[in-house]
Amino acid sequence: MTTPQNSGEATPHHGGESAAQGIGVTAARGFRAAGVTAGIKASGTPDLALVVNDGPSFAAAGVFTSNRVKAAPVLWSQQVLKDGRLAAVILNSGGANACTGPAGFQDTHATAERVGAELGVGAGEVAVCSTGLIGERLPMDLLLPGVELAVKELTGHGGEAAAIAIKTTDTVHKTAVVRSPAGWTVGGMAKGAGMLAPGLATMLVVLTTDARVPAPELDAVLRAATRTTFDRVDSDGCMSTNDTVLLLASGASGVTPQGEEFAAAVERVCAELARQLIGDAEGASKDIRIDVTDAATEDEAVEVARTIARNNLLKCALHGEDPNWGRVLAAIGTTAAAFDPDRLDVAINGVWVCRGGAVGEDRSLVDMTGRQITITARLNAGGAGATVWTNDLTADYVHENSAYST
Amino acid sequence: MTTPQNSGEATPHHGGESAAQGIGVTAARGFRAAGVTAGIKASGTPDLALVVNDGPSFAAAGVFTSNRVKAAPVLWSQQVLKDGRLAAVILNSGGANACTGPAGFQDTHATAERVGAELGVGAGEVAVCSTGLIGERLPMDLLLPGVELAVKELTGHGGEAAAIAIKTTDTVHKTAVVRSPAGWTVGGMAKGAGMLAPGLATMLVVLTTDARVPAPELDAVLRAATRTTFDRVDSDGCMSTNDTVLLLASGASGVTPQGEEFAAAVERVCAELARQLIGDAEGASKDIRIDVTDAATEDEAVEVARTIARNNLLKCALHGEDPNWGRVLAAIGTTAAAFDPDRLDVAINGVWVCRGGAVGEDRSLVDMTGRQITITARLNAGGAGATVWTNDLTADYVHENSAYST
Repeated sequence: MTTPQNSGEATPHHGGESAAQGIGVTAARGFRAAGVTAGIKASGTPDLALVVNDGPSFAAAGVFTSNRVKAAPVLWSQQVLKDGRLAAVILNSGGANACTGPAGFQDTHATAERVGAELGVGAGEVAVCSTGLIGERLPMDLLLPGVELAVKELTGHGGEAAAIAIKTTDTVHKTAVVRSPAGWTVGGMAKGAGMLAPGLATMLVVLTTDARVPAPELDAVLRAATRTTFDRVDSDGCMSTNDTVLLLASGASGVTPQGEEFAAAVERVCAELARQLIGDAEGASKDIRIDVTDAATEDEAVEVARTIARNNLLKCALHGEDPNWGRVLAAIGTTAAAFDPDRLDVAINGVWVCRGGAVGEDRSLVDMTGRQITITARLNAGGAGATVWTNDLTADYVHENSAYST
Repeated sequence: MTTPQNSGEATPHHGGESAAQGIGVTAARGFRAAGVTAGIKASGTPDLALVVNDGPSFAAAGVFTSNRVKAAPVLWSQQVLKDGRLAAVILNSGGANACTGPAGFQDTHATAERVGAELGVGAGEVAVCSTGLIGERLPMDLLLPGVELAVKELTGHGGEAAAIAIKTTDTVHKTAVVRSPAGWTVGGMAKGAGMLAPGLATMLVVLTTDARVPAPELDAVLRAATRTTFDRVDSDGCMSTNDTVLLLASGASGVTPQGEEFAAAVERVCAELARQLIGDAEGASKDIRIDVTDAATEDEAVEVARTIARNNLLKCALHGEDPNWGRVLAAIGTTAAAFDPDRLDVAINGVWVCRGGAVGEDRSLVDMTGRQITITARLNAGGAGATVWTNDLTADYVHENSAYST
């Protein structure tokens, strides 16, 4: 079995085995990374990350936002991934390069060209990710010199610096690692704290592995993993123009994983990063797990869970530690899923406050003082289920997002 | 032409022509109304309203929430309206009587029985509306004596008292009147300040007219009017279990309206009430009009407008008077409507801040200091359009809705 290691809040490692292995995207062999300050962010904090695959394999896969308004770097990266091969990923915070027209696409292209020239690979082997405010051009006069700096700083333990450089409103950097006793590793990093409702992938995530896995299998494994992890995070119902999840395989371990172990490891790293995203969502004071059970189909369970997750009135009530189950039923009632309104059961933190569509156990029994809240909605319409993660709606969320671009 | 009269904030009328005519539901001849304090609300404010049609006609129509979790009074009123005939409507605030099971339905039935007995009509001619917290039984020991009191207080100028008695978190009571020079009148009242995203009707609304109009025509006129008014109010994306809009015709004017004038008058009263609802939405500081133009179809225009209206990040930005048009595009991109991302234009308060999917006019030109904000999204995909009204998302909304039931 694989061993999960949550290094989200870990202190930097210098020296010793873990430093040699690195964390996040440099936990797997065959990768180097860097995070530097190019000056894109007015704050002067790190804003440019580079992840490089040194091979011997360069297989890669990616999933991207299903938002039809796609940022230039998403359009670029989709294109370069068509051959299932990547040598490097360059990521900037401080600007999304979305809704920037043909000039914005040119900026992405120029960034990939510069990375390729510095590394001696083709621009078509370089994926680009950007995150920040929509509708503004990137300062290329700062970004391109930043690329040169990042190349100079590349090391086999640069995973943490890279994870730090992709933060926007994130309060912590996010990494995760799963190591297989068979000799291979899957590691990754993520950024994301708002606009968290991916239609396919979410936010910026780079995963790396030294397992030997061909690109078509990477693609299948990554799609399956994101479907049950990042796709089921719905902090605020708002889908980004820049969501990107990439998985790069160096093959440097020389080991070809057997059976389902590799898929399970990728899903585990994705799930761990997804949980870190919810735990750091803008202004949130509660992490809310919504379990929909006894649904007719998994799709309907997801639909119901997502509808509950997006109900502003409920999210306010949960912020106020009010077990207002009527708002859960009002939300379920807006879906097309199979259920009988008189056979709905709802539990909040294990107390079945609603049974048979009406009053159940005493709502005063519900303890909602902790950060984590679990809502269970039993549809009594079949044997399928799904879990979606969301957050409460708070005055801090309003404040943070009413002042973001100003 | 008809003359609209907004009496939302009007002072009570005593004596003189307007008192004789009444306002709201007693503006039309043939109707009496009352609003009394039954003691259902802990606050001791009025909480029970009664509207009685004295004929000679008793034609009526209704539209109800499309939420599949329907409150007992909705199930009851849908049933009694099947014959297109109503003699009275009883409405209580202080409790929604939703998710209360068979016992809750019995409470609704008993309420209609008592109203019928007091008025000398059948219970099957009495519609019931309830509004307030979901998941709690109504205090029938207070409500039924309140019915007797309301019957005693019925007068031809009770429209304002009735409008006051149906308030919950509403800060103002809401009435509207349109008078036709042909001798007939349409009046109405509404309550609603939260959970404002009707799937069909919204909140509690009672409209009355003294025009002679048969029930099937009332039904068609009411459905058409709600489709373009209450259905296009989306304050917080949350659909209620109790939404009801009723239209009662007494025929007391003796006049049968000609042509489209009656439908136009009903739509005008609905539009006026809908605007009052948005203007009084919980915690809101902005009334936001979203015009989607040049869409392929009206349905797609509504879908796009509603998706923009429900985007929490945008609603926060508008609260902060930040013309963050990137969030408008990110929202449009999640719809299935026909458009080319590179041909989207967006104006905020008349300034085209986005042209061709990219940066347009200088965003600093946008003045957002007033309460009303207009967002225009031009899809450049056809000739259809639609308008949806919403509000901003504020810390006050969070506060009001995190403390509602406690």
